[in-house]
Amino acid sequence: MLKGYTLPRTPRGTSSLSPAPPWHYVGNALAVEFAASPEAVAAFLPEGLEFSSNHCAVYFLEWQYASDTGLEYLDPIRSQYRETIVLLSASYEGASVAFCPFIWVDQDVALMRGLAQGWPKQIGSTWMTRAYDLPSKAGPVAGPGGRFGVTLAVKDRLLAEAQITLREEAEALPTPSFARAVNTRHFPELAAGKHEQPAVYELVQLKSRDVSVSPIWRGEATLAFHEHPYLELGDLRPVSVGAGYRFTFALTVDDLASLRDLRSNSKDASAAT
Amino acid sequence: MLKGYTLPRTPRGTSSLSPAPPWHYVGNALAVEFAASPEAVAAFLPEGLEFSSNHCAVYFLEWQYASDTGLEYLDPIRSQYRETIVLLSASYEGASVAFCPFIWVDQDVALMRGLAQGWPKQIGSTWMTRAYDLPSKAGPVAGPGGRFGVTLAVKDRLLAEAQITLREEAEALPTPSFARAVNTRHFPELAAGKHEQPAVYELVQLKSRDVSVSPIWRGEATLAFHEHPYLELGDLRPVSVGAGYRFTFALTVDDLASLRDLRSNSKDASAAT
Amino acid sequence: MLKGYTLPRTPRGTSSLSPAPPWHYVGNALAVEFAASPEAVAAFLPEGLEFSSNHCAVYFLEWQYASDTGLEYLDPIRSQYRETIVLLSASYEGASVAFCPFIWVDQDVALMRGLAQGWPKQIGSTWMTRAYDLPSKAGPVAGPGGRFGVTLAVKDRLLAEAQITLREEAEALPTPSFARAVNTRHFPELAAGKHEQPAVYELVQLKSRDVSVSPIWRGEATLAFHEHPYLELGDLRPVSVGAGYRFTFALTVDDLASLRDLRSNSKDASAAT
Amino acid sequence: MLKGYTLPRTPRGTSSLSPAPPWHYVGNALAVEFAASPEAVAAFLPEGLEFSSNHCAVYFLEWQYASDTGLEYLDPIRSQYRETIVLLSASYEGASVAFCPFIWVDQDVALMRGLAQGWPKQIGSTWMTRAYDLPSKAGPVAGPGGRFGVTLAVKDRLLAEAQITLREEAEALPTPSFARAVNTRHFPELAAGKHEQPAVYELVQLKSRDVSVSPIWRGEATLAFHEHPYLELGDLRPVSVGAGYRFTFALTVDDLASLRDLRSNSKDASAAT
Repeated sequence: MLKGYTLPRTPRGTSSLSPAPPWHYVGNALAVEFAASPEAVAAFLPEGLEFSSNHCAVYFLEWQYASDTGLEYLDPIRSQYRETIVLLSASYEGASVAFCPFIWVDQDVALMRGLAQGWPKQIGSTWMTRAYDLPSKAGPVAGPGGRFGVTLAVKDRLLAEAQITLREEAEALPTPSFARAVNTRHFPELAAGKHEQPAVYELVQLKSRDVSVSPIWRGEATLAFHEHPYLELGDLRPVSVGAGYRFTFALTVDDLASLRDLRSNSKDASAAT
Repeated sequence: MLKGYTLPRTPRGTSSLSPAPPWHYVGNALAVEFAASPEAVAAFLPEGLEFSSNHCAVYFLEWQYASDTGLEYLDPIRSQYRETIVLLSASYEGASVAFCPFIWVDQDVALMRGLAQGWPKQIGSTWMTRAYDLPSKAGPVAGPGGRFGVTLAVKDRLLAEAQITLREEAEALPTPSFARAVNTRHFPELAAGKHEQPAVYELVQLKSRDVSVSPIWRGEATLAFHEHPYLELGDLRPVSVGAGYRFTFALTVDDLASLRDLRSNSKDASAAT
Repeated sequence: MLKGYTLPRTPRGTSSLSPAPPWHYVGNALAVEFAASPEAVAAFLPEGLEFSSNHCAVYFLEWQYASDTGLEYLDPIRSQYRETIVLLSASYEGASVAFCPFIWVDQDVALMRGLAQGWPKQIGSTWMTRAYDLPSKAGPVAGPGGRFGVTLAVKDRLLAEAQITLREEAEALPTPSFARAVNTRHFPELAAGKHEQPAVYELVQLKSRDVSVSPIWRGEATLAFHEHPYLELGDLRPVSVGAGYRFTFALTVDDLASLRDLRSNSKDASAAT
Repeated sequence: MLKGYTLPRTPRGTSSLSPAPPWHYVGNALAVEFAASPEAVAAFLPEGLEFSSNHCAVYFLEWQYASDTGLEYLDPIRSQYRETIVLLSASYEGASVAFCPFIWVDQDVALMRGLAQGWPKQIGSTWMTRAYDLPSKAGPVAGPGGRFGVTLAVKDRLLAEAQITLREEAEALPTPSFARAVNTRHFPELAAGKHEQPAVYELVQLKSRDVSVSPIWRGEATLAFHEHPYLELGDLRPVSVGAGYRFTFALTVDDLASLRDLRSNSKDASAAT
């Protein structure tokens, strides 16, 4: 009897790319709020979500992760990863939600956990300034005047860069927020004639639990998205840039709410073309 | 209307991690035939496949890939990848097939295409000796006496190493062969209570077309699999090592045959535990 | 007039692999004290240093760096790097010093700064558990009971691994200490007949300034060095393992003391063989 | 007695980052001839070289390397590397030579061998289209009409990209050529007050031997250099682009000719500012 939450499924079940949930996370985040073209935001929303505003955010995170059984953080190459998350505002049946058009991580395990949650993960290279517990010319203070920089590159091309100067403590996290994002879970078919009829395509909502947040620092920011030969992030480039943030975030994921099956829409659309 | 064969689905559809099939491949392969413990081989086979022999093979490949529209090989960071494939012998309804318990690639695009085909791909680091069209002390001849080395590492740990010395041209490819492997397509559920009831779990058979093969060189080989903290490849370690091979291979993939839905078995199994 | 502290020297001088000192550093360290074979320790010491004890230490660090002009930490891919440092005890003219037989970093800029200081740097992959400012099952507390893991791999082979469980605050840093290590600066000749007569080969002592240290946590540790096809770290494997440590460290480097020219010794030795 | 051609010097001498020469190389090259601004070319030349023309070339190579004793190509992670070389035309005492302002490799061993030869190596990411011995939609023919692409990225930013379409066999290699380039060997001082007085700074000429070249294919090319925050390659951007080439190259290096000590010039210059 083979075991494993994902492939590969094996006799002992320890080889699976992702172990079964729950998945516990803690990470340091830098984030920037921005506004994109309303037409571009609307164009990126899937069936079932409606445009609500052009208010967006991008998060850069250095995560550490563990499952219940693995103590993965003691083998940190298995546990640590860096991530860039882009979030759009949207409305689902009248409620404000966040939708993620793009997300990049740098570990296969994070990619697979992401696919299970509907995050459209690809591999990318995120680098973000760290603050240390000693004053030094080699790093910023994690407080007023502290300056932080971020870059994201995908397949050797710089895709995003940001700088943040912290000014004051804030009472609220940036918005839109990733902890309850609405995603699309998707798994394609490969049989001839079914390439446009995915085996799985559904609107889902993340259900995080045990969420905790450190004090939140806020300040001013710069943000740029660069053109890329095929990645469409540039279409969501900032028309204005809002506040920058820094905080630490912890959460646990072991559930997901299915909102709507999108497969029939997909089939109809496919038939119509 | 969002477009894309995989996530992310976007307005123009160029950002999708994998473009739609057909997928064209050409690669240089080194391969080693070996025998593993019959009990271990049997233990790794999924529902629907039966043990036939303990004859196995491992393939190491440097691939280049392109879709119909992309000319991806002109942007080689998007097209090239290295791969290690382990194959077991098995029987499906009386026919000889190959089953893949483990496979490692070094690009996200290859990982996603693999998931669509049921390959249980993870990210790993494969290095293999190259032959050049000039004699040199820096490389082997691609003929009698030419020596080739290979290593595979996963998450900073060496998992497999092989050496091959070519002796003569061979008439047949190594077996078991990867071009018509039987895989398990699998996509997990994350909703609470459904973690052991995958959304997709089916036995499938690859349907390659336009296969071509270069002259095939064969000789003797050494092969070792190393212990790893959680990857179970060591359970399939060689009890004897057969011939080594070198050849070039090209194929196209745009179809897949579904053999059997494995989800009910999985549910029953889950209920029984 | 070309400018640059190192190659490449260019018209504006901004392309140089390493900018001119001072170099400011801040980093989080995990460290383990251990004893190696006395014969092995003695065998690794260069001319000018004498064996004093078999007491050794290995440090694992996540650094951030900046020059005076660069604010490199705002472009963190240029500033951050991970490092593993092995230190042996030694005696120089009666004074206790530390000597580094092996050191690995993961950025070219760190490698070049290291060569200028006599650190025998190579590229390696260091991963170390992080502590975050929020309690989480995904990370340890930075205090009593907190568990940390480390791995070092070089060219896809695991070379060292350690685990540390913190117990109490300590008053002193681990020894031997890296801030005033004695190194050998070395730069080879390539002209025929001079391959064993380096252009530069001298015993030097680091001169750090503006050193600051966070509170120091200490506890018990495990440590293993693994065999490698050509890297001789295994010869220094622990015969006993002492305490483990965690602390943050900041320093500035812009000076170096030359202790002794080792070139004539080298020439004599070369002549004798 | 410690042994090693470079650091680290160790009891058995097998740990040295670079083994002693001779170093044997074989590689596949793509190359593009181009013209840069004459003022820019002149500004990049070191003391001792004079401007001769604005004719330049950039080479992209996939190398495999071995020392006399190592059979490194059997452990290919130790042997293979990718490289981008930029070459300017220059004149040395009336003779035509080539000077390298920038060069990037992706392995530490290649970087160290380069420093010994005066190549101003940094770590960069080069990707280049491969041709295979089978026709395929996944790759070009190595002959008329075959299209090849290249990218170079440094620290996550794309720095150069080229495309080449082969048309015909050529009788000569592209110029300027790298096999007898004139370089500057350089090793800095770190002692206070001596930061501008390098320990080694000399004009040298490569002395390759056992050079062999495959048939050479030539065709048309495109080439672009991109702006970078601190790397000055953009100053040498093409004002016109010439032919593109593809060929295989093998050579051995174990000697170097010293042309001129540049240290006093450097000191005078430093004193004058």
